[in-house]
Amino acid sequence: MRSFDDYRLMVENALPGQLTDLGEIPEPLRGAMLYSLASGGKRIRPVLLLACCELLGGSAEEALPFACGLEMIHTYSLIHDDLPAMDDDDLRRGRPSNHIVYGEGMAILAGDGLLSAAAEVMLRTAIRMDSLRGAKAAEAVFRRAGVTGMVAGQTLDISLEGKPPTVETVSAIHLHKTADLITAGMEAGALLACARPEELDCAVAYGTHLGLAFQMVDDLLDVKGDPALLGKNTGLDTAHGKQTWVAVRGAAGTEQDARREAEAASAAIRGIKGDTSFFADLAEELLHRIS
Amino acid sequence: MRSFDDYRLMVENALPGQLTDLGEIPEPLRGAMLYSLASGGKRIRPVLLLACCELLGGSAEEALPFACGLEMIHTYSLIHDDLPAMDDDDLRRGRPSNHIVYGEGMAILAGDGLLSAAAEVMLRTAIRMDSLRGAKAAEAVFRRAGVTGMVAGQTLDISLEGKPPTVETVSAIHLHKTADLITAGMEAGALLACARPEELDCAVAYGTHLGLAFQMVDDLLDVKGDPALLGKNTGLDTAHGKQTWVAVRGAAGTEQDARREAEAASAAIRGIKGDTSFFADLAEELLHRIS
Repeated sequence: MRSFDDYRLMVENALPGQLTDLGEIPEPLRGAMLYSLASGGKRIRPVLLLACCELLGGSAEEALPFACGLEMIHTYSLIHDDLPAMDDDDLRRGRPSNHIVYGEGMAILAGDGLLSAAAEVMLRTAIRMDSLRGAKAAEAVFRRAGVTGMVAGQTLDISLEGKPPTVETVSAIHLHKTADLITAGMEAGALLACARPEELDCAVAYGTHLGLAFQMVDDLLDVKGDPALLGKNTGLDTAHGKQTWVAVRGAAGTEQDARREAEAASAAIRGIKGDTSFFADLAEELLHRIS
Repeated sequence: MRSFDDYRLMVENALPGQLTDLGEIPEPLRGAMLYSLASGGKRIRPVLLLACCELLGGSAEEALPFACGLEMIHTYSLIHDDLPAMDDDDLRRGRPSNHIVYGEGMAILAGDGLLSAAAEVMLRTAIRMDSLRGAKAAEAVFRRAGVTGMVAGQTLDISLEGKPPTVETVSAIHLHKTADLITAGMEAGALLACARPEELDCAVAYGTHLGLAFQMVDDLLDVKGDPALLGKNTGLDTAHGKQTWVAVRGAAGTEQDARREAEAASAAIRGIKGDTSFFADLAEELLHRIS
């Protein structure tokens, strides 16, 4: 197996070319899309897609356009999420948000463009394949990114804002808003490798548990970075309405839950024959960030 | 051949079910999507998809999910276009715009949701087909809706706003912003019917010419509805920067161009064997709106 960084570099090197291949994209749209695509991040979703495809005997090179499409979808969701009408964030990964640089109208279009480009890139590749594998992988990505997946999670996040968080509301939001797109990488990778149904189930279960652990760790790091928030959230004072794990489970409870989800992820991936240490290591490393 | 209204009713009756089939969509997202999907309009894009598919020997019933997907994409583009950061329109077809009813954040998500749902609906159907026809039709729709198609047109529209319009700028904007999605219906319909390359070319040429005529007629009706605008636009005073046909060609010139494009559309569709009167009639009726 290749390393996480090997896969990450494959994706980062391929992303601009995948856009160029679509034809002439007018400025400032092209620049706005590339600005956010190039702004780093862990690339965990496309890396999981490539790694899962190879684990199950598929080709990471063939899967690369799907990995790029998935990262385009993740990037569009961040651009739209940062808009004043949504989370109203001026900064993203330490750089000015897309709408701060390009204006709100162009940021909306850059998001729309990335979502459309993701479909185009995946469909072009699917048509060149000898089977319906590519269409199935694209369907999995759009199902988990769409109105019963990530967009559903964002809807819950908006409509539950200010309401008292419960384990149920926090679970529902993060299962869709965060875990679904991480799971999409595993599911699409498995489908591209023509996985057997039981292998597909293991890959999907790994993605879901890892995605939940990922969000729990993120919530914990948020409060550790801001001790005032920690004090506010660790008690039973949940009336301020932040829909986070720490708000409903406290810091210690969230850490416990994150360990349990990471272990469930590792257990799930062991259901697949072969060297699954890449995936177990990833779940392990996630926990190191909070210990 | 069925009538325009037959096809339109097929689409309108199928649209809500296509969303329901995707699973449980949380409120208010589901309501916001249905609100704009149900708000009428001519449904010209999906009707052309169904009619073109049948003209070339395909099944309109089989093509119906693609027609619905295309209308979802058209609808998402209107929702995002009406946002304060874009055209800032409070009304759409005589009803309050999506963001006036559901708020800006939910309108952004409703648009994102409709675009994702379009991909999902088309891909699910494509997977059930015996060939790659469905994937090819979906690719054509997303190519013409995306960063070299409709989204490119909207980018040009924003970035050229306030600049002096020329025949070149107005052509580029409307070829992409309007004609591409109308052409998408013809192209996807032809691909679903497994059209021969020369038939595909005729279908695409019809869509492009009809799409341009359509926008010219729209621009003319705009100034006829507002005589003050007509006076302002018919001269050589183009410095106010409205990127319309009337601004660069005057009312008489635009009417002449619309006739030429409608005739070119009719000539193109006659390249396909069979009863093409549905398409010629449609081009003819378009001109009646301005005569």
